[in-house]
Amino acid sequence: MPLAAGNARVKDARRLSRRSVRTERRLFLAEGPNAVAAALARPGCVVELFVTPAAAGRHADLLAAAPDDVEVVLVDDRAAAALSDAVTAPGLVAVCHLLDAGWDDVVAASPRLVAVCADVRDPGNAGTVVRTADAAGADAVVLAGDAVDLHNAKTVRASAGSVFSLPVVVERDPAAAVRRLADAGLTVLATAADGELDLFAADDVLAGGVAWLFGNEASGLPADLAALADHRVSIPLAGHAESLNLATAAAVCLYASARARR
Amino acid sequence: MPLAAGNARVKDARRLSRRSVRTERRLFLAEGPNAVAAALARPGCVVELFVTPAAAGRHADLLAAAPDDVEVVLVDDRAAAALSDAVTAPGLVAVCHLLDAGWDDVVAASPRLVAVCADVRDPGNAGTVVRTADAAGADAVVLAGDAVDLHNAKTVRASAGSVFSLPVVVERDPAAAVRRLADAGLTVLATAADGELDLFAADDVLAGGVAWLFGNEASGLPADLAALADHRVSIPLAGHAESLNLATAAAVCLYASARARR
Repeated sequence: MPLAAGNARVKDARRLSRRSVRTERRLFLAEGPNAVAAALARPGCVVELFVTPAAAGRHADLLAAAPDDVEVVLVDDRAAAALSDAVTAPGLVAVCHLLDAGWDDVVAASPRLVAVCADVRDPGNAGTVVRTADAAGADAVVLAGDAVDLHNAKTVRASAGSVFSLPVVVERDPAAAVRRLADAGLTVLATAADGELDLFAADDVLAGGVAWLFGNEASGLPADLAALADHRVSIPLAGHAESLNLATAAAVCLYASARARR
Repeated sequence: MPLAAGNARVKDARRLSRRSVRTERRLFLAEGPNAVAAALARPGCVVELFVTPAAAGRHADLLAAAPDDVEVVLVDDRAAAALSDAVTAPGLVAVCHLLDAGWDDVVAASPRLVAVCADVRDPGNAGTVVRTADAAGADAVVLAGDAVDLHNAKTVRASAGSVFSLPVVVERDPAAAVRRLADAGLTVLATAADGELDLFAADDVLAGGVAWLFGNEASGLPADLAALADHRVSIPLAGHAESLNLATAAAVCLYASARARR
């Protein structure tokens, strides 16, 4: 019989919706077929998998490909809803080990394109930047400063699985992140409304190794952090718009890099 | 004395949070300094303005610049909260005439860059595309098919004022929108994962007049609509990401146009 919402194992997993519990137990939840498939593709990442009978039928191939050491637990619809952050529970939730990558691994891989979010507060924005960075061919993302939790359910969902495929470093000190990336040989570029380098005239710089700095949704990038960059880059703005939002600005910059590198 | 939340005039304005009331009365609410400033810059758009004493102090310049025929009504904090869709009410809300532009006006202006969203369902995405299109120098946005209401509070907020500066056409029939734009001399481009034209190799096309077609968040662009386009364009994807989300895909495409036009 599938486990009900009141079952101790389900209740235990549900506690992972709280950041403090995630931090203490070094585990988090990833839901839906995209995220779960990406998690299963990462060796040793998934601890256990909760699935409703209906979702098991829909995703039989995915379950068949799960490693032997991943326990698959059947749950009923109410238990699946209790484990879900989504409006409509997908009926498929993995308990995973935390993902934060270390600087040493990222630097050792000789990165050529890195996205740094300073003080990103919205979980959807953080996940969208990870997804976009992955799509644009970045080697890593850094969540710097006072950032939202990488393992928040909304961040994981907005990344569409990319939190599992792209290394994400969590670094409290944004200035330390800039120094690390500069030491790794990257040209550090800060997005700034009054930046001296026009994005559309920056191909020579973008063809090399680059770390992009993006600021907070409301307040942008602090001036002292922007001053640490090699160049401050302005995105051309036509019409009456005074700025782009964080995720779209990051998409425009990261794809400008992807194009110049090709 | 500032009007309280129970005042009939406040309650009357509050009803505009419902789409059916907006449609019937041909009015909607726009809140916050950016949106209200953009609304006031559009002649005849604002009917009345509700403001708390504290917000009046913060935005004295904005109120001083309001046209004489705009009545400014003081409200208390609870009334401002009742009129707000935001977590923290900005204390400044304008009652505005509906904005939807007509095809004739858009076509008469000889547009060179237009963004078409087919079946966009998320209000934040719709508003973000309007903001990004404005920033990229587009001449209009079309909300086609089964789209979210342009005058939804979240759409207006996500647009950061651009719903007031860029014409937005609402068109139930997406195929009719494509015909209109093709008749206006624009090359119609559909975003498609398997598109035959690589975005990074499309500058010759993008330098001319272009209408971009973007699909629904979950299901993308219907095949029959994509087939109506002159070209289907693929955004290069590296890493493990299988796609971009709607707003970031639109940002990448619209800025590719902006760059090629320059």
